[in-house]
Amino acid sequence: MTMTTATDPQIEEFLAARADERLETYKELVRIPSISALPEHAPDCRRAAEWIAADLERIGMEHVEVAETGGHPIVYADWLHAEGAPTVLVYCHYDVQPVDPLELWTSPPFEPVVVGDRILGRGVADDKGQLHLHLRATEAILATRGRLPVNLRFVFEGEEESSSVHLDAWLTAHRDRLAADFAVISDTGFFDGNIPAITIGLRGMMYAQIDVTGTEVDLHSGSYGGTVENPANALARIIAGLKDADGRILVPGFYDDVIELTEDERRRVAELPFDEDAYLARLGLPALHGEAGYSTLERRGARPTLDVNGLWSGFQGEGSKTIIPAHAHAKVSCRLVSAQDPKRIFEAFRAHVLALAPPGVRVDVRMLGGGRPSLTPTDHPATQAAARALAATFGREPVYIREGGSIPVCATFEEVLDLPVVLLGFDPPDQRAHAPNEWMDLGNYETGIRTVVRMWDEVAELGSAAFADGAAASAR
Amino acid sequence: MTMTTATDPQIEEFLAARADERLETYKELVRIPSISALPEHAPDCRRAAEWIAADLERIGMEHVEVAETGGHPIVYADWLHAEGAPTVLVYCHYDVQPVDPLELWTSPPFEPVVVGDRILGRGVADDKGQLHLHLRATEAILATRGRLPVNLRFVFEGEEESSSVHLDAWLTAHRDRLAADFAVISDTGFFDGNIPAITIGLRGMMYAQIDVTGTEVDLHSGSYGGTVENPANALARIIAGLKDADGRILVPGFYDDVIELTEDERRRVAELPFDEDAYLARLGLPALHGEAGYSTLERRGARPTLDVNGLWSGFQGEGSKTIIPAHAHAKVSCRLVSAQDPKRIFEAFRAHVLALAPPGVRVDVRMLGGGRPSLTPTDHPATQAAARALAATFGREPVYIREGGSIPVCATFEEVLDLPVVLLGFDPPDQRAHAPNEWMDLGNYETGIRTVVRMWDEVAELGSAAFADGAAASAR
Repeated sequence: MTMTTATDPQIEEFLAARADERLETYKELVRIPSISALPEHAPDCRRAAEWIAADLERIGMEHVEVAETGGHPIVYADWLHAEGAPTVLVYCHYDVQPVDPLELWTSPPFEPVVVGDRILGRGVADDKGQLHLHLRATEAILATRGRLPVNLRFVFEGEEESSSVHLDAWLTAHRDRLAADFAVISDTGFFDGNIPAITIGLRGMMYAQIDVTGTEVDLHSGSYGGTVENPANALARIIAGLKDADGRILVPGFYDDVIELTEDERRRVAELPFDEDAYLARLGLPALHGEAGYSTLERRGARPTLDVNGLWSGFQGEGSKTIIPAHAHAKVSCRLVSAQDPKRIFEAFRAHVLALAPPGVRVDVRMLGGGRPSLTPTDHPATQAAARALAATFGREPVYIREGGSIPVCATFEEVLDLPVVLLGFDPPDQRAHAPNEWMDLGNYETGIRTVVRMWDEVAELGSAAFADGAAASAR
Repeated sequence: MTMTTATDPQIEEFLAARADERLETYKELVRIPSISALPEHAPDCRRAAEWIAADLERIGMEHVEVAETGGHPIVYADWLHAEGAPTVLVYCHYDVQPVDPLELWTSPPFEPVVVGDRILGRGVADDKGQLHLHLRATEAILATRGRLPVNLRFVFEGEEESSSVHLDAWLTAHRDRLAADFAVISDTGFFDGNIPAITIGLRGMMYAQIDVTGTEVDLHSGSYGGTVENPANALARIIAGLKDADGRILVPGFYDDVIELTEDERRRVAELPFDEDAYLARLGLPALHGEAGYSTLERRGARPTLDVNGLWSGFQGEGSKTIIPAHAHAKVSCRLVSAQDPKRIFEAFRAHVLALAPPGVRVDVRMLGGGRPSLTPTDHPATQAAARALAATFGREPVYIREGGSIPVCATFEEVLDLPVVLLGFDPPDQRAHAPNEWMDLGNYETGIRTVVRMWDEVAELGSAAFADGAAASAR
């Protein structure tokens, strides 16, 4: 392994001269409140897409397009002049999670601030920071060398945080012009202790809403209490019936397509440098909890889950209001693994919820989104190139991990575009993605730029032959 | 029974001449948004109290006072010149319930409108309409006769909808100047089919909040799902463990002080003209529900309940947010009967909730309010006078009912002031108290004024002797 210079002196010089400007444009992108789940932020999503497109034009990418999808646009761009070199499709997303509860943010979510070696703000890690570091790596190479060592295609999505509703159709429609040797998705992070990591497993997802309806309006709990089913009590009973106290999901058929970890896999998970006491202390909880019979890391990476994401019914104000609520609602999602299919899981989930529903209320279950789980081959040449780039820039061999999160697009790239996927992400662990005070480690961000530069050089060095149909297919 | 003239011609003439003005001042009172549970409406509560005090002064009541309580004020007034006649303490409340969900109101809650023979608005029934009809009855008698047939004390509370926090202390402190022969509480209603009714049983209440806390902030449900207890799932399991599917409350000791109905009582309840199919149809539910082994009316009047009044946790917006909520909350209240004591019930409830709490979260339970159940004697001379007044004015013998609701002040008057209580209320059944589109039957309101006039005449006719210590005590 060549570790003497992570990138090259010209690129280091270029990056060093633009450190302030880089931080400023990073903040600029974060300031756009592109929350894809909230309809009122649709114009902001478009604004973020246009900001990125303008940046791509400026740095010399070609065929830059803010592509209509029927929802928030996809930003596409390419640079295809590295004749004979491999072609890489890079995916990030520019949309972000909602920010509530707003009162828990120490600074406004869309006014990013630097505190020590951290930058705070919604999206600084997930995923605008990673998107921005790809832009900066490309800019540095093109500015100093006038050309890229590989052919690049960027696909930057605006609906990742709201179930990627339109991505499948767009990728399918543009399949021909998206030809590549492999895809790089930068939307994951490092392992505990900020150890460089390549994610090889991602969980899928099924996201649903349960609506329990009683009377048209709230009832007086005195006049009617004892005569009617209470939708909130009914909802609680339904939710309680979805999972037992040991964390085992009670939906019939739920585990049918879950492949048990092999002894070898369990051994490798057990070898990861994971400090459970520190994890618990960081969370500030009285105890950890999960499916009996599995370790914490196994439960996080290789086992499915069922979690309530939101709950609402009746009176939520200060003091007391004596009503039987007219209706009660829950958002419930499952993280999926192995061969679990979101649609089949939803059907099983729906059937079980309806079976649990008491006769005195109406219960409705609908699917809000989903994505298939995915597993990436560790011995693929692109995965190995990423590992070498990480080792060279961060000075430490990466670990291979199964992440608990879901990037449904991963399965989509594999299935729609038939591309192997490398998950090369730079988020620090515990970056509070989806929570108040999301943060990014500025060291990870800066070194991440060098990692990307180095990876394209590594991939170019391997040459196209390494990714020839046969070679890539055998690795999968 | 003398049914020829309900009141007397002068009073009828006085009331007829002021019908428009009466409706106008009724609306004026309703327009003041005196929601006692919401701190931001404290000035409105005071404004309502002052409006009532000014009205009392105007009609000739004496010792009018907006009395400080530490919370929302109590309005006191009296007229004590009916020498040798009985003294009656009249209680109503001027505070109202919150109005959410606002979008379900067909007209703004504090802009009362008349539609046919109904008036719509928050508080038109519960309890401003009843308070206002007492004011109008008193005004009519004083204006036409120059004096009242009985001695009257008005105690109008401003915290009935927020657990009457300061009433006990105020009544205790002013016990000496509140001497009376009996109390009339006008905060109840008629029976199914708008049949005149005297409520003889009221349920008590215990109102609590459960707070389940996990991490300081929401967690990413992918990164952490499967490793930590989810506060919303935990809350659902706790709530599900409070009551079984048959409506039986599972809190140990909960039923210890519940006195079973006698065979005779069950027979009388069964004889009430109650149309269960119509009740169900009006509610628009697929089925009724309640504790197995009891009829709907028994469950409503003579059995305790446990209902969730509100529920909140995590993401409640459109679309999906993939989090494990940091915390989850529920408001839960029990209607109590017989000898159930709110504080003892709370302790049992709290112990059971904590026993159900899983180890991975912190669970806190606190009592927000409570009141003891109460039963009124049907053979008390005041109850009988009320029955005659109702029959004379509404043209139909009243039925005696056990209501499901709670008027904690009822037990307070019995215990603190040692007064027998007559529950003389005029709300139509299904008046949507506590719900959107609360309404009052204007016929009930108008005839109710005559009932009150007639009742004071009936009571005066009985004379003080009927309420002498021995007579009243034996009736209790």
